[in-house]
Order: sequence, then C-alpha cells, then structure tokens
Amino acid sequence: MASLKIPELVPSAAEDSQQLRKAFVGLGTDEARIIEILGHRNAAQRKLIRETYQTTYEKDLLKDLDGEISGDFQRVVHLWTMDPAERDACLANEATKHLPDNNCIIMEIACARPSDDLFKVRQTYHACYKKSLEEDISDHSTEDFRKLLVPLVTAFRYEGDEVNMTLASNEAKILHEKISDNAYSDEELIRILSIRSKTQLNATFNQYNDQFGNAINKDLKSIPKDAYLKLLRSAIKCLTKPEKYFEKVLRLAMKGMGTNEESLTRVVATRAEIDMELIKERYYQRNSMPLDRVISDDTSGGYERMLLALIGHGDL
Amino acid sequence: MASLKIPELVPSAAEDSQQLRKAFVGLGTDEARIIEILGHRNAAQRKLIRETYQTTYEKDLLKDLDGEISGDFQRVVHLWTMDPAERDACLANEATKHLPDNNCIIMEIACARPSDDLFKVRQTYHACYKKSLEEDISDHSTEDFRKLLVPLVTAFRYEGDEVNMTLASNEAKILHEKISDNAYSDEELIRILSIRSKTQLNATFNQYNDQFGNAINKDLKSIPKDAYLKLLRSAIKCLTKPEKYFEKVLRLAMKGMGTNEESLTRVVATRAEIDMELIKERYYQRNSMPLDRVISDDTSGGYERMLLALIGHGDL
Repeated sequence: MASLKIPELVPSAAEDSQQLRKAFVGLGTDEARIIEILGHRNAAQRKLIRETYQTTYEKDLLKDLDGEISGDFQRVVHLWTMDPAERDACLANEATKHLPDNNCIIMEIACARPSDDLFKVRQTYHACYKKSLEEDISDHSTEDFRKLLVPLVTAFRYEGDEVNMTLASNEAKILHEKISDNAYSDEELIRILSIRSKTQLNATFNQYNDQFGNAINKDLKSIPKDAYLKLLRSAIKCLTKPEKYFEKVLRLAMKGMGTNEESLTRVVATRAEIDMELIKERYYQRNSMPLDRVISDDTSGGYERMLLALIGHGDL
Repeated sequence: MASLKIPELVPSAAEDSQQLRKAFVGLGTDEARIIEILGHRNAAQRKLIRETYQTTYEKDLLKDLDGEISGDFQRVVHLWTMDPAERDACLANEATKHLPDNNCIIMEIACARPSDDLFKVRQTYHACYKKSLEEDISDHSTEDFRKLLVPLVTAFRYEGDEVNMTLASNEAKILHEKISDNAYSDEELIRILSIRSKTQLNATFNQYNDQFGNAINKDLKSIPKDAYLKLLRSAIKCLTKPEKYFEKVLRLAMKGMGTNEESLTRVVATRAEIDMELIKERYYQRNSMPLDRVISDDTSGGYERMLLALIGHGDL
C-alpha cells in the first residue's frame, strides 16, 4: 500500500515540465512547486516528465534540480525523481563504497524488492557502472559479509504461493542445527536464505518457531551487537516482513537527539510507492506516535515538506 | 556464426503452418516437408509458426509433431522448434533429474549463454516448473557440484569489453594458489569464475598462463577422471572458447562404435543458430573430417537429414 497521493486530474508531462522550469528560473527557487509536482507523481509519470523536460529544454531535470536545491531536500527530491531501478543501482553503488557500514542497504535491495525489480537493478548496474553489482560487493566486502551478500543479490526467487511443508520442516531443522553450532555463515544456511521463495521461507521460519520454541531471529541474537548477525536478522525480517524492518530503520533514524537523514530519506524515497501505508501503521503501533508528527519534529523546510508529501500527509 | 540456412523468400507463418498440417494428415508423415520448413526457420519465425498453428488449428504444434514422428528425429525436431529459453529450461529441468551425470548440461546453459539469455531461462523456469532453477539444482546435487553450479546459474555477467589487468593478475594468483592447494571448490575460486565478465576471465586465464607457465585447465588435470575437476575444466572452456567445448562434446558423442544421440542432438539444436560454423571449423581442424560426413556415418533417416539441415549441409 503506497502512501503517494496523485491528483485525480494529472497535468500532462509537458505542463509539469514547464511548471518545473518556471520554478527554477529567476531569483530563488519555487520549492513548493517542485514538491507539488514531483511529490505527487508516480514512477511512470516522473519518467515521462524527465523525458519531456530533456527534449523540451535539452537539459537533465535531475541536474537542474541539483543546481537549484541543496542538502537533504535535494537528496530526497533527487532520489525520488529517479527511476526505481536506477535509484536502487545508485544506492547500491554508493553503499559498496562504504562497506561494511552500509551492508544493510545492499541487503534491503536484495531482500525487499520483487524478483523482477532486483533483476532490473542488476541490469541498470551494468549500464551505469560497467560491471556487475556482485563484483562491486565482492571487491569491497569481507569474508562473511561477502558470503551472504553475493548470493542474496544474485537471487531470482520464485514468486508463486506454493509451499512445500516437508521441505520447510527439513530446512527449519538444518537452520536450527547450523545456528546451534554458531555456523552462521554456513553455506547451507545461506543457500536456503538465498534460493527459496519468500513464501517458502516464511513457512520454514514458522516451522522453526514451532519445532524449536523460539523465533529464528531470537536465536540469532546470541551476540546482540555482532554486525554479521545483525545483518542476517535484518535479511530474515526484510524477506518476510519488510514493513517491520523499515519501521525499525525509521524508528532508529529519529530516536533521541539528532536524526539519521540518510536512512530517513532512503526509506521514504524507496517505500512511498510500495508499502509506506503499512510502515506507517506499524510505526504507530510500535511508537504510539504517528510517523508524520515525528518527521515534522525532526526535520524542517523543503525537506520536511517533501517527506510529508511522500508519506501521504495532508490533502492534495 | 550460425549454420542455419534460411531461404531468401520465407513463406508466411500461415503458409508454413498449413504445409506442416498437410505433412501430418493422411497416412504416413511427410518428414521431408517438416525438415524443409522447420529446419530452415530462425527462432522468431518458428515462434510465429507455433502461434499461428495454435490459432488456426487449435492444437499445439509441438504435441502434433510428437504424435507424428518418434525417436531421435522427434527429439531433435521438438527441441529445435522450442523457443530457445524454453528449450534451455526444459534441458536444465531434465538434467536436474539425472544429476550428477548431467551436470555438464546445466554448466553449458550457465556458461555458454549470453547473460540476458541465461536470465530468460531462469524466468521461463519459474513459469514452467513453479520453482527456481537454482532450487532444483540445489535439491538434486551434492556438495562440491552444488557449490559450483548454483553460483554459475545465478550469474548475470557484465558483457562489456573492459578489462582490468591488475585484477586479472591478482585473480590469476588467487586461482593458482587455490589450485596448488587442491582447493578446487574453494569459495574464492568459484566466486571469481561466477561473477567476472567473460572478457575479464579470459584476461585472467592468460595471466595465469603467463605467470605460471601452464594453462589453467592443464593444472586442473591433476586427477584426470575426477568428475568435479572435469566439470570445472569444461566450465572454463565454455566461458572462454565455447566452440572448442562443443567440438569436444560432438567428437566424444560420435567416437568409436555407437553414438551418444542425446549429446549430438542437444549440441546441434542449441548451437545451430549461434556458432555452429565455428564449431564445424574447429571440428574439421581437430578431426580432419568434416562434421557433416561424420554425422552421416553415425545417423540415418529423418534424424540424419534434420541434423544435416541444421548444420547447414547442402543447398537450400
């Protein structure tokens, strides 16, 4: 359930391009207009606007935006305006330059996207960076992280609803055995997580819970601060309950003093068109505070207004 | 360089369908007509013929062919007529049921297809078998084979011409180190083989030869009959010189008494539209006998005539 709100009557891409151009020219930038347009168009509409802008003004809309606005506002508008596969390829590429810190971004892209979307990211990565995503991950990460992340990004999971209960039961046993032996980066464990469909994995984790009395992620908390185990738990969450995973990222991004704008921007830009309504619901359940209020408290200016537009705050 | 010969004036798909239908009805089957049509149409044309046949006669052309002809002739016509991705998915699925014997078929599909084609096979596999190819491989193979085959089939290699010579030199060293330690199924060795572009791997294998004085495949012959090492050598050949690999498969298929029709059929059906001219050249160089003569000696009837048509023997 997307949070993005699109007007009933959407102006043509030519009109939108013209209005954006108007927002840029002259003294100052009409930030409200940028938000009014880009903050209320879906991926296909934004793509068309970019193309029309390019043909009409012979300029790249993204570059013009970068020249007009700055800081966190620029970052969220830029990421949001990109084509989803291009955006993910760009986020993944940035992440490979800051490994192991940004492991979770690669994991998110690998585990929280439908199979076809993940494949489009790999295709776009070739076109943009002249190599494969898995090469960059492999070249910039270390032992256990590489062992987990490469199979996760090369996955092309079946997306049907079929569940093999015998397999789920057997693989729950294998997972339990490996976890009991602290063999967290064991090949078999990683293979199960990276080849099975999400529906099948969900059944396997339920079996794990039923057979061994604990949720698998509880058993993976033996060393709570271990970075690899944290990534493994996040992957399991992303594969089965992405809204729960993203709620936590948002919660931590705005907890206490200071804000992690990188995480906040990324989650809003990548989920507004997907499941932000579910994430908001989950956020309210978990924090007894609506997400828009917390975002308002933690951010300001164009950045705040763009985030609120994307999470569907207020009327159109 | 494809060996397939297509007439200058190709009849419409409607005419071809009608002629095929005529070849089926009445007493006996007009085998010559089947070969004349299907043996001289490319993948796009065959696809259109199947679609037209289906709409016109409300019957599946493949099923009708299976009812009319039999044995090796049926097998080669059936495989050839299929869409390439569907054919590969079918061959891979059959192979997973006869592992480890048919490991090489999965390896061929993983290593001798362009990246986009391999991905189409994975997509088609989902649609046909309601699970992923890598799941079937994983479920039906054992330790080392699984460790090699799963990364190979999940690869989506970059296909540009860029070569990083420093990387090639470094990875040649890693490969040599692993091979010297008999660590043939080492993760790093498998990762290099499964994530790098074919152009990059070619540079790496050249570096290996230059730095250590032997071709990598020579060093992988320490236990000549070991099935895993054989598969590894074949994968390396398929990745860099597929025509050399397929020449050998054909050579062995028709060596001495008896013929391995399965291999002969598969290589002709999968390569006639790709690089059969190169394979034929290589075959002649290596065996001092033209491929068509050897095929004629080893096969007969409609099977022989279809194989000869596909390898471009004779005039149209």
